[in-house]
Amino acid sequence: MRVGDYACIDLDREARTGVPEVVLAEGKTLPQLVGIARAMVGKKGRAIVTRASPEALDALSRLPFSKRKHPDAGMMVLWAPGFKAGRTGGTVGVLSAGTSDYRVAEEARLIAEELGCRVVVAHDVGVAGVHRLVEALGRMRRSKVDVYVACAGREGALPTLLAGMVDVPVIGVPVSTGYGIAGRGRSALYAMLQSCSPLVVVNIDAGFVAGAVAARIAHGRRGR
Amino acid sequence: MRVGDYACIDLDREARTGVPEVVLAEGKTLPQLVGIARAMVGKKGRAIVTRASPEALDALSRLPFSKRKHPDAGMMVLWAPGFKAGRTGGTVGVLSAGTSDYRVAEEARLIAEELGCRVVVAHDVGVAGVHRLVEALGRMRRSKVDVYVACAGREGALPTLLAGMVDVPVIGVPVSTGYGIAGRGRSALYAMLQSCSPLVVVNIDAGFVAGAVAARIAHGRRGR
Amino acid sequence: MRVGDYACIDLDREARTGVPEVVLAEGKTLPQLVGIARAMVGKKGRAIVTRASPEALDALSRLPFSKRKHPDAGMMVLWAPGFKAGRTGGTVGVLSAGTSDYRVAEEARLIAEELGCRVVVAHDVGVAGVHRLVEALGRMRRSKVDVYVACAGREGALPTLLAGMVDVPVIGVPVSTGYGIAGRGRSALYAMLQSCSPLVVVNIDAGFVAGAVAARIAHGRRGR
Amino acid sequence: MRVGDYACIDLDREARTGVPEVVLAEGKTLPQLVGIARAMVGKKGRAIVTRASPEALDALSRLPFSKRKHPDAGMMVLWAPGFKAGRTGGTVGVLSAGTSDYRVAEEARLIAEELGCRVVVAHDVGVAGVHRLVEALGRMRRSKVDVYVACAGREGALPTLLAGMVDVPVIGVPVSTGYGIAGRGRSALYAMLQSCSPLVVVNIDAGFVAGAVAARIAHGRRGR
Amino acid sequence: MRVGDYACIDLDREARTGVPEVVLAEGKTLPQLVGIARAMVGKKGRAIVTRASPEALDALSRLPFSKRKHPDAGMMVLWAPGFKAGRTGGTVGVLSAGTSDYRVAEEARLIAEELGCRVVVAHDVGVAGVHRLVEALGRMRRSKVDVYVACAGREGALPTLLAGMVDVPVIGVPVSTGYGIAGRGRSALYAMLQSCSPLVVVNIDAGFVAGAVAARIAHGRRGR
Amino acid sequence: MRVGDYACIDLDREARTGVPEVVLAEGKTLPQLVGIARAMVGKKGRAIVTRASPEALDALSRLPFSKRKHPDAGMMVLWAPGFKAGRTGGTVGVLSAGTSDYRVAEEARLIAEELGCRVVVAHDVGVAGVHRLVEALGRMRRSKVDVYVACAGREGALPTLLAGMVDVPVIGVPVSTGYGIAGRGRSALYAMLQSCSPLVVVNIDAGFVAGAVAARIAHGRRGR
Amino acid sequence: MRVGDYACIDLDREARTGVPEVVLAEGKTLPQLVGIARAMVGKKGRAIVTRASPEALDALSRLPFSKRKHPDAGMMVLWAPGFKAGRTGGTVGVLSAGTSDYRVAEEARLIAEELGCRVVVAHDVGVAGVHRLVEALGRMRRSKVDVYVACAGREGALPTLLAGMVDVPVIGVPVSTGYGIAGRGRSALYAMLQSCSPLVVVNIDAGFVAGAVAARIAHGRRGR
Amino acid sequence: MRVGDYACIDLDREARTGVPEVVLAEGKTLPQLVGIARAMVGKKGRAIVTRASPEALDALSRLPFSKRKHPDAGMMVLWAPGFKAGRTGGTVGVLSAGTSDYRVAEEARLIAEELGCRVVVAHDVGVAGVHRLVEALGRMRRSKVDVYVACAGREGALPTLLAGMVDVPVIGVPVSTGYGIAGRGRSALYAMLQSCSPLVVVNIDAGFVAGAVAARIAHGRRGR
Repeated sequence: MRVGDYACIDLDREARTGVPEVVLAEGKTLPQLVGIARAMVGKKGRAIVTRASPEALDALSRLPFSKRKHPDAGMMVLWAPGFKAGRTGGTVGVLSAGTSDYRVAEEARLIAEELGCRVVVAHDVGVAGVHRLVEALGRMRRSKVDVYVACAGREGALPTLLAGMVDVPVIGVPVSTGYGIAGRGRSALYAMLQSCSPLVVVNIDAGFVAGAVAARIAHGRRGR
Repeated sequence: MRVGDYACIDLDREARTGVPEVVLAEGKTLPQLVGIARAMVGKKGRAIVTRASPEALDALSRLPFSKRKHPDAGMMVLWAPGFKAGRTGGTVGVLSAGTSDYRVAEEARLIAEELGCRVVVAHDVGVAGVHRLVEALGRMRRSKVDVYVACAGREGALPTLLAGMVDVPVIGVPVSTGYGIAGRGRSALYAMLQSCSPLVVVNIDAGFVAGAVAARIAHGRRGR
Repeated sequence: MRVGDYACIDLDREARTGVPEVVLAEGKTLPQLVGIARAMVGKKGRAIVTRASPEALDALSRLPFSKRKHPDAGMMVLWAPGFKAGRTGGTVGVLSAGTSDYRVAEEARLIAEELGCRVVVAHDVGVAGVHRLVEALGRMRRSKVDVYVACAGREGALPTLLAGMVDVPVIGVPVSTGYGIAGRGRSALYAMLQSCSPLVVVNIDAGFVAGAVAARIAHGRRGR
Repeated sequence: MRVGDYACIDLDREARTGVPEVVLAEGKTLPQLVGIARAMVGKKGRAIVTRASPEALDALSRLPFSKRKHPDAGMMVLWAPGFKAGRTGGTVGVLSAGTSDYRVAEEARLIAEELGCRVVVAHDVGVAGVHRLVEALGRMRRSKVDVYVACAGREGALPTLLAGMVDVPVIGVPVSTGYGIAGRGRSALYAMLQSCSPLVVVNIDAGFVAGAVAARIAHGRRGR
Repeated sequence: MRVGDYACIDLDREARTGVPEVVLAEGKTLPQLVGIARAMVGKKGRAIVTRASPEALDALSRLPFSKRKHPDAGMMVLWAPGFKAGRTGGTVGVLSAGTSDYRVAEEARLIAEELGCRVVVAHDVGVAGVHRLVEALGRMRRSKVDVYVACAGREGALPTLLAGMVDVPVIGVPVSTGYGIAGRGRSALYAMLQSCSPLVVVNIDAGFVAGAVAARIAHGRRGR
Repeated sequence: MRVGDYACIDLDREARTGVPEVVLAEGKTLPQLVGIARAMVGKKGRAIVTRASPEALDALSRLPFSKRKHPDAGMMVLWAPGFKAGRTGGTVGVLSAGTSDYRVAEEARLIAEELGCRVVVAHDVGVAGVHRLVEALGRMRRSKVDVYVACAGREGALPTLLAGMVDVPVIGVPVSTGYGIAGRGRSALYAMLQSCSPLVVVNIDAGFVAGAVAARIAHGRRGR
Repeated sequence: MRVGDYACIDLDREARTGVPEVVLAEGKTLPQLVGIARAMVGKKGRAIVTRASPEALDALSRLPFSKRKHPDAGMMVLWAPGFKAGRTGGTVGVLSAGTSDYRVAEEARLIAEELGCRVVVAHDVGVAGVHRLVEALGRMRRSKVDVYVACAGREGALPTLLAGMVDVPVIGVPVSTGYGIAGRGRSALYAMLQSCSPLVVVNIDAGFVAGAVAARIAHGRRGR
Repeated sequence: MRVGDYACIDLDREARTGVPEVVLAEGKTLPQLVGIARAMVGKKGRAIVTRASPEALDALSRLPFSKRKHPDAGMMVLWAPGFKAGRTGGTVGVLSAGTSDYRVAEEARLIAEELGCRVVVAHDVGVAGVHRLVEALGRMRRSKVDVYVACAGREGALPTLLAGMVDVPVIGVPVSTGYGIAGRGRSALYAMLQSCSPLVVVNIDAGFVAGAVAARIAHGRRGR
């Protein structure tokens, strides 16, 4: 479906892949962003917007739809009246290594929830004090987590340790914290890719991707 | 379990994580490699060796165990008499974009097979001629694939296209082919991480990691 | 021709190469930019300005010339009274992979138009949903496109797919979108350079270069 | 068409795009390479092999086909009896900046010739002594060159100067010569991408790509 | 000589090396900058400040000294009453490739002048139109230039061409213009270091260093 | 100890490692930062905050605790009434190469002081005038320094020279000054890691890490 | 002391810094290496050679001195008759994360021993199975280790975990294992520099530097 | 002058620039290299060959000309009977920081000598023991050195220190020694470019360039 001369919405993506098209706010002008969000709510009943600046969130707030806002994560979800997301089932465990990784972990959480999963969360459980991870993991295991999303912004060892302790898939998400050499998440990305534990990885700050793939995995683990 | 003064085998890893310790041949002297392989067969019934040079494969061949050899993939599996791997179930689809990506795709295939999955394979189905991918995908869908592993060494678009066509998880594996700028797989890695499709990624040439995580996912999708 | 002590305009460039000197606004002070634009309109009848900030566009707007403005593309064209650009002929097809690539694709479009070509455009036809590309391509083929300019900001596979489907030259333009590792267009640049399809490439965001070379090619394909 | 379990030849590519599938020898085992070459000669009448090592050229030499060999360029062309390549027309000018760039320029030349173009060549005409370029250019202009391919391995200024002197398209090819910082062609690649002249570029050492796109352009410039 | 607790001025540097200590404004707080400038004027009769922001220039302007200001180059020179710089003799030729390189070339010019040289300047004489360089060079040769400083921000070929035409030393200065890959002067730096012509280079934007070394060379060439 | 849903303070770290948890302000929202600081003062009697922006320092200033402020170093220490830090003993020598390295050297100094050491400081003693270093070193030796912290932002030779002159450990701290290639401290980091003198290094600008490890070393050297 | 025209031995270094000059074999011709080793044994009684190839070790073996050889670590120590190294005291704990890190850890061990320390070692105790580290640490604590050297070649988390568990200094040594992106030790280096735990680092594979600084620290911790 | 189809010798370069064309052996086949060397001796009386492998030196040795060989520097000079190089005058001081930098320093020395300068040399005088540099410098000053060439392969501080002590130009030459991060000379290159002392730099290992520019400077300083 064409929107203005600048966008072409892929209306079948959710049917084809199980994951709806999500609107990345960065790189779009405000009129483009608002136009696309309005079109998606109109055609699909829901628009999920990520990486939105405060200005973008303001502009979206003026649209006449129901909303779920998470400014710390730069996200907003807008619904048409009566929209009802499906419950695909499955449980996702989301962990962050430090308070600075909060926003990305929350992005993964919201996406997985919007895709119909239950999510359990533990923030600030990095490996400089490994006992915090052990405690969080005990709680998560009791929730029968199907897949873990582990967000870490500096040395990136959290997903490695986790993958050495559990028997379900682990997705590592590097976060763009850290200064100096290989800062802004590159150090964490490299460490996760070099990990000796079996681990899959997404781009730096890509909470959306991690949440979406986690939902796909969690869904499967409950049976189709 | 200590081997010589140079190794400390993690005998419980398989019980803890569902994935056995795999021996990376690179960076080990031949006596270290042979010593570790012998110890693993003795204690666990099986040793899986990856990234082995021809010299390393020769040295391992002289050990008095049953073997599965795949020299093009730099791999060998050794078994104690009577060893029987479990069938965990689940089906993994492995694709390669070009003939040069064959060795890494085969590494993923062997690992997934050793971890108890059925594997269906299609080589040389890259996007420069996209009809080849469509044909292979038809065949794989009929096999009810639970998770895809897509290996690509240059522009890395194969997993992106695939993830836009299917509704199960896709793992991208960059392969160290390609010359010039960002060659040796870096271009493919970057493209997969930047993909607009929901996609998880492993390190360049990390067929083992992709195969192991795919098995974990495939296992779950069949129910526990 | 000297302008102030800071510029030396190459008045013969268009006669020599078929492409007029274009003014890159970045890196120039406002007085330098305005001085150069005024001199070019005076001597050549037209000034084409690219990569201009809103402040620069404002300053140029106060010049007493006819104008074509495209703020989203950071461009302005100024004409002396009675200036008439030649029609060199030829048709250029411009595609963008996503809405975020709009501004660079529009820069290529304006340049090709100013150099006398017809341009057909399709925005937001990236490979995550490949059917959109197939539709756009059908329309472009009916316009007898002589050369394609394909702008893509993340995985950069659009020009590769395109070059595998058509028999005229394809110019890839990486766009500085994308975050994380190899973001800001580097991932797309690398993927285009590593492409298995025959493809030529310009610098990240270099819509001007792509438009100018496309015009040269399109011109030739209509006969000289 | 499948070859062994490792390759899937795209038989329609030439019809679809005007450029036949070319075999990149690097990254293939000798049996894979020979198998693919034999299959291509059998089905398409010709196999063009690039970036072949001396061992690979030896193995191909033993195939019972007519051959054109160019060991310094790492290339071989093999024909079935009676194969006749079409003459598409058009003239390509190939220049190299130094003797070290010879092999890549020759790769471009052979490809353009195999695709039916006339090629005029000038080696070792780099910008440290710019009079050599001026002399070569005079000769080329008399041959009515439709498109230039300029190969340069160090500072990469040759295509920039050229594009400031001619009114047909120029393709820059960086060559992997040069030592130290940004050596192995990266310096030249960057310089070509940053050029102030309108210039398109291919990957480092990608003589094949430059030759193929040049042929596409040259073909068009003669009219269709 | 200590200034506050934050600086230790090297009062003998000029006597030891012929080049006075120059104050780099970047990275210093305004009070530190003003304190150091005041101390240098007090002890040495002159303070030369480079890379100063508009705020820094404002703060320095309020000091009760004679001044030479060059805001476009981010520079200021302050003198004690009666200060008289020596005339070391020698002539430096300063060239810039484009208007965007103006500020760095001017920094080199001022430094060489403050160190007692005569300077001849030609701006915007880059290689996209090589006739401009030839004209400027004719004028400079008539001035008997002892050493050239060539500033270029994109492909960096200007110093290479120059060094192939003259028989005195050439110093290349990369300038942080240019966008995309290897932008901000890196492309030019690499090209100058890889040049086939004998050429020495300084850091990106290091007009001060180029001017100071040029003065040392020019001084020597007139005899000691 | 949990703070909000975003932090989990490691209360035992000081007992376990001798170094208290320090709060990195970057990447935290103001409410998160203030919440964590308040909790740490409440539980541990002291909060040490690093890399705080002026806004963050303002917010912390409103907390009702005793404070030590160092805005130039981006730091603040807050104490509960009656808090008394231990005197672990030992003397740390802190040097900076230039005025621009002041802020990082001061961060190291404050941390070492808070961890109970005596600190002697010499700023702006870099190697362009090596006599300044010799003078500072004489003074420090008289103070019986147990370990040196040497901060340098450009060529990074200061710690190398120092380590060739003394017989106690030297910690090099690269500082993010310097422009152009490998600027922002990378050049200094690389030089320190490549040093021929025995030298240990921390991340760019990591004054906290250097101060903390120096305190550990200094403590030990006085005997336990 | 001059050796040939190619070397100038710093005979006072040990007296000045407590660490003798160590001979890096890489980059020296065999005659240069042998000449330097002979001169050092002659003047100082001992030559310590690192990073020696098998050929270099062979050439050194023919010298008529007592020797300590460690080919797996590429090292050799040669003594004059009657040479007696001092016992400086202090205990160093050396750990490696994997068998592939053995050679670098052994280099650190030998250096520390030659500098008069007691060394306790634990190999292959990386964090993929964290219980192995806990066991090794228990043993080391009983030996009253003064300083740890932790060698790790892939994700580099070993020193981070260690530094979160102990109260003495920890030196991280990245090892050039690992393939793919940021392989050959860069991933580990970055992770150690970004660590949230207080940690100092040396260059990739710099076992010598780690051993030498550890000895300096260990020496001091026993009192002087 | 054309040689074969692969080279075009610039016979006037020496007259134009004062520096003869020098043959870089790398990247040329042996027949090309020998053909070019023979042609240069024939036309110009002398051929200077750099970066030649042992095989290349062997092939050149068989030419029937007088020769000066320096295998450790990978160089050879060949003369026609009766060739007599001019004495341009001037004195160049060449220093190397370590024995591993010997080969590059010797390349600079030979070039400067072939261009008619007197050269004084001091090897292995790096800054880890700064007294060695002071001694060498005393000797060089007595020789009235006009320009210094300082070669250093690791931290690169040697030219910085030198430029802070002398009042003639200093050229820094990074050498491709050093392992690990930024090894192979990059660390030294960056440090020299970031130096606070006025210093010009050439590419890593570019002894030829340093020698040629030093000769140009030395020549001038003696008067023309």
